Amino acid sequence: MAKQNISLSVIKRLPKYYRYLESINEKGIIRVSSKELSEITGLTASQIRQDLNHFGCFGQQGYGYNVSELIDELSKIIGVDKKYSMVLIGFGNIGHALYKYKSFRDLGYEFKAVFDKNPELVGDTTNDEVEIYNVEKLEDYLKDNQVDIGIIATPKEVAQDITDILCEGGVKGIWNFSPVDLKVTNNVVIESVHLDESLFTLTYFMNSPEDFIF
Amino acid sequence: MAKQNISLSVIKRLPKYYRYLESINEKGIIRVSSKELSEITGLTASQIRQDLNHFGCFGQQGYGYNVSELIDELSKIIGVDKKYSMVLIGFGNIGHALYKYKSFRDLGYEFKAVFDKNPELVGDTTNDEVEIYNVEKLEDYLKDNQVDIGIIATPKEVAQDITDILCEGGVKGIWNFSPVDLKVTNNVVIESVHLDESLFTLTYFMNSPEDFIF
Repeated sequence: MAKQNISLSVIKRLPKYYRYLESINEKGIIRVSSKELSEITGLTASQIRQDLNHFGCFGQQGYGYNVSELIDELSKIIGVDKKYSMVLIGFGNIGHALYKYKSFRDLGYEFKAVFDKNPELVGDTTNDEVEIYNVEKLEDYLKDNQVDIGIIATPKEVAQDITDILCEGGVKGIWNFSPVDLKVTNNVVIESVHLDESLFTLTYFMNSPEDFIF
Repeated sequence: MAKQNISLSVIKRLPKYYRYLESINEKGIIRVSSKELSEITGLTASQIRQDLNHFGCFGQQGYGYNVSELIDELSKIIGVDKKYSMVLIGFGNIGHALYKYKSFRDLGYEFKAVFDKNPELVGDTTNDEVEIYNVEKLEDYLKDNQVDIGIIATPKEVAQDITDILCEGGVKGIWNFSPVDLKVTNNVVIESVHLDESLFTLTYFMNSPEDFIF
């Protein structure tokens, strides 16, 4: 697949297209035009065509895109056509919520182990029988098990230490929920969800609605 | 305060600056130069100066910025110097986690009521005595109570209906965790946290690390 100079903004829109197409697919719609996609997404039809052309997804003039074919193509581009093994570090409130978030699992993201420092949790299992280990065992666990993704839902004070262990331990990606920016090594990629920043952004626009694009 | 043509990317960086400065402040550091901020944030010193100049935050040549003064300024710009009343709709896993997320509360964001449709929850209170109402009462609640922010942590199927009620009910902002893009009215601003898109973005970069900026 020819991919060159894909800008970050295009990449960030791919998951959005994927989500829209999935919801269209659930409704049983078979074909969609870039004009219809434009109405749902708020992006221009030409922007959408340009984005999808980047990845060799061409609609048919007058017919638009075949929804399930486009989903398949996007799955491959994003990589959700594969399975991923995950470990979760931090089984507090956010960790719990992520663990129970159903949509990831249906797509083939699988929790292999959970780590926490709370002695009341360690040694127990989750409700679907995944082991909860002491976080001190993380390094050893990664030596013995191939893990694709580490999810960090720990207090910020320990997040960098956990990151170092994950990067040394051979994960390919880190999904970070700790409110801190982490340094990765060994070409590990990282994506952070900063809840506080998101709430502050909302707060800013509430106070300066003239800056908000409705 | 003179604010003109502030780009979205500048606005999105403000919460990041705020977070960095808070963490510097916690360490007891009194002054910080744009060069030091650059080392922590990864942004160039000139970018940082330019961003802060937009809002009239000027450092002193050779002395840098006074950390607590800059935090105060940023608090006012972002709006975190004020108090906000919030309602939470959807007290499932994500809703619970958000409800218990401590850092918002310390800043003056206060949960006034929780809404859910689960009869086992309705009529109960949260562990800090906030009432859990039937979601059908949301409209009436908003008639009787002034609420700044509505947090949506419901299944996606009902998220637009809840949004309509919140917009009619006079909230100023919506913080959405449902995996759907919502249409707002009455100049209500909206900020969404799309967990699935974030995980897909991570997945894309894990499969195309050459596109990731390390």
